[in-house]
This record gives sequence, C-alpha cells and structure tokens, in this order.
Amino acid sequence: MAQANNDLDKPLERRGLLFVLSSPSGAGKSTLARKLLAAHNAISLSVSVTTRPPRPGEVDGEDYHFVDTPTFKRMVADGEFLEWAHVFGHRYGTPRAAVEAMLENGKDVLFDIDWQGTQQLFQEAGSDVVRVFILPPSIAELERRLRARGTDSDEVIEDRMARARAEIGHWDGYDYVLVNDDIDACFAKVEDILSAERLKRMRQKGLIGFARELMKDPQIRPS
Amino acid sequence: MAQANNDLDKPLERRGLLFVLSSPSGAGKSTLARKLLAAHNAISLSVSVTTRPPRPGEVDGEDYHFVDTPTFKRMVADGEFLEWAHVFGHRYGTPRAAVEAMLENGKDVLFDIDWQGTQQLFQEAGSDVVRVFILPPSIAELERRLRARGTDSDEVIEDRMARARAEIGHWDGYDYVLVNDDIDACFAKVEDILSAERLKRMRQKGLIGFARELMKDPQIRPS
Repeated sequence: MAQANNDLDKPLERRGLLFVLSSPSGAGKSTLARKLLAAHNAISLSVSVTTRPPRPGEVDGEDYHFVDTPTFKRMVADGEFLEWAHVFGHRYGTPRAAVEAMLENGKDVLFDIDWQGTQQLFQEAGSDVVRVFILPPSIAELERRLRARGTDSDEVIEDRMARARAEIGHWDGYDYVLVNDDIDACFAKVEDILSAERLKRMRQKGLIGFARELMKDPQIRPS
Repeated sequence: MAQANNDLDKPLERRGLLFVLSSPSGAGKSTLARKLLAAHNAISLSVSVTTRPPRPGEVDGEDYHFVDTPTFKRMVADGEFLEWAHVFGHRYGTPRAAVEAMLENGKDVLFDIDWQGTQQLFQEAGSDVVRVFILPPSIAELERRLRARGTDSDEVIEDRMARARAEIGHWDGYDYVLVNDDIDACFAKVEDILSAERLKRMRQKGLIGFARELMKDPQIRPS
C-alpha cells in the first residue's frame, strides 16, 4: 500500500497573493471588495499605516497603525512600505513586513487602490500581485451611479467624472479587465479570478513535496 | 447623454485560448475534458489530422482529417502542425491554420495531451496556451482507479503506473496544478481557470475600442 503521507489529508501549502481591485469611482470596486471580504476568509485587508489622527472609536493596530509624520517619513526612507500615497494632506502606506508574513502563511491581501498605487505595488512585489480592473458598462451609467448617491454637487460630480476618465486610461496596466454591467455576474468573475490564481503552480509551495512523495512510492518503483 | 455605442450591448470581442489538460492515466483528465465540452459551448476539440485508417462510422473532416503518411510528413516539413506525435504506429497532429481561425473568432480549443505535446504546443503558440496539470490525491488512489476499470492485467497496470510516475514528474511545466481528490470540486476549479483566463486583458481584443469610447465621451470632456 502507499504510505499514509502520500495522501492528501490537508490542503497543499500555498503562498498568498496580493489582490488588487482598481476602477474609476462609481464602477463598483468598493462593493466588490466588501463582498469579497465577506465571502472569503483567506483574504483580508492589510492594516495601513497613516499620519491621519484617529477618529472616535478607531483602534490603533486594528483600523490603522497611527504614526506621526517624521516616523512615516523615516519608514518611507527605510523602504518599509510596499506602496504609499499622500491623500488630502495625510499619508497612508502598506507595511511590507506584515504583508510578507501574511503571504508566507498562505493568506491573501486585498487592495482597493488606484493605478498609481498598483504600479508601486507591482514594482515592489511583482508576481505576488494580481491586478484586476473594473470598467463601467458606459459613461452614462457611471454618471447615473454617481448621481444616485445624491450626496454630491454638479461640480463635484463633474470633477469625479473627469478623474474617472483619467483612471480608465490606465486599464492596460492590469492583468484582468472586467466590465461591471451586473454586480452579481461581475462578483462571480472576481471570485473565479481569485480561485484560479490560487491554483497557479508557482503559488503552491506544498506541491514540490507532494509530487515527490507521489513519484517515490516504493510500490511502483521498477525493481 | 452618452452615445449609444458606449453601451455594452454585446460581449467584448476576445481572442480564444488553447486549454491543455494533462495528467497521468487515471487522474481524471478525460472525465474533466468531457464535462468541460458538455458544459461550455465556446470550447471544443480541434479536429486532428491522422494517418490512422478510418474506423467504421468515422467521417473525414469531422472525427479526423484522414491523410496518408507522405502527406503527413509533408505537412510536418511545412510547419502545418502546432503539435504532432507518433502513437502506436500512427501519426496524429493538430493543424495550425484551423486552430488559428478558431482563436481569431474567440473560440477556445481543448487539448487532452501529455507533457511532450504540451511542450510542443507552448513553443508554437506561447501566450495563447493555458496549461493545467491534474494530480491524483495519492498513488494508492491512482492504482485503485486503474484497477477499478477491470480491463487490464497486472502487467499492464504496472506499466501504466510506471508511466504515470514519469508523467507526474512533469507537473512543473504547467501554469496551474490541481489535485483531483473529488471530481466535482476539481471540475469547478477547472471551470474557474477557464473563466479567469478568458478575462485576461491580453485576450480581450474588444477592450481597446471600448475603453477609447468610454474616455472620449463628449459629456465629460473638459470644455
């Protein structure tokens, strides 16, 4: 009989991945990200480092790692971020060491970032990164969704639309491109991509040992 | 309002792909291939060229393209095959022109071939090829499946097991590796891979025009 350790009694060990969702504002990225986090335990957001002061109820180390600006700058200089950005006067960054630990433990990390963050992340983490871009089905639909929020003035919407158009121009820096004409269909495609990427040979660290066990079984070694 | 041609009234045009399933005998490859063909219209087998004589009922041009050996050799010399092999005294090959036409029309082609055919195909067709390798959960299970067929002598089974072991050694020449411990779960993963690969940016020929339309909409062009 084959040895017991030949048998697949637990899933093969794998390296996690960095799953990036980008889209122009209003194309559904945040909804997709929320659904993905709710449906899949093995993927989570990384806890960012920020210079923004905590809001009431926010917990240091859970919602964010709160640091002062000199500390943040020192971390940038020391290469401690996979990507970082300056947004409305505050700095936000993804800490490299924490993410690397998650990847090693087979945990996936979700990123809801724009094309510039994606470019930074890809430069730092290469083949660990899976880049997904979400397009709206039409510009008319994008505008309809932005107006449906009912919170923004015409001027703000016009500004958002101009930025959306600029963001769309970067679709070709992504591995996968989806058109979100139906949120459920689009979410199913996002799940397919995550599932397939987890099956990539290069992420499956456990395969080397497993295939070796399969091949060395004494039962079939020619005598 | 946005122009009508901005709207996604039909799926974006895409380039097809060459979907390869390889596995040692008994790991479930043929079952998976059959299920995939039954469940998905946009993927089909290519019609091979062969020097084997037609069996009763086989139709030239449907089951195979039947040719004589000098014709086959001439086709090899002229580079008309994406891959070909000599099996039990007969030659079998995949005609390049027919497959290229399918890819151009957004049709996917399924290949149930071994690691050597996969290597040939990849050399000829590069990024159009998606390589999936199926492993059995254990050597004991592989042997059990081969014996369960009830058609082979011990000697034949021993020979099949030795060849299976050799085939397993080539798992690292594939893009995706799956362990078939449950046929339905494994099939769902195969479908996820097919779905995700179709969403790769580089296969979506229609995206260039679509993104251009999204960006040039006069509604949001700054005046």
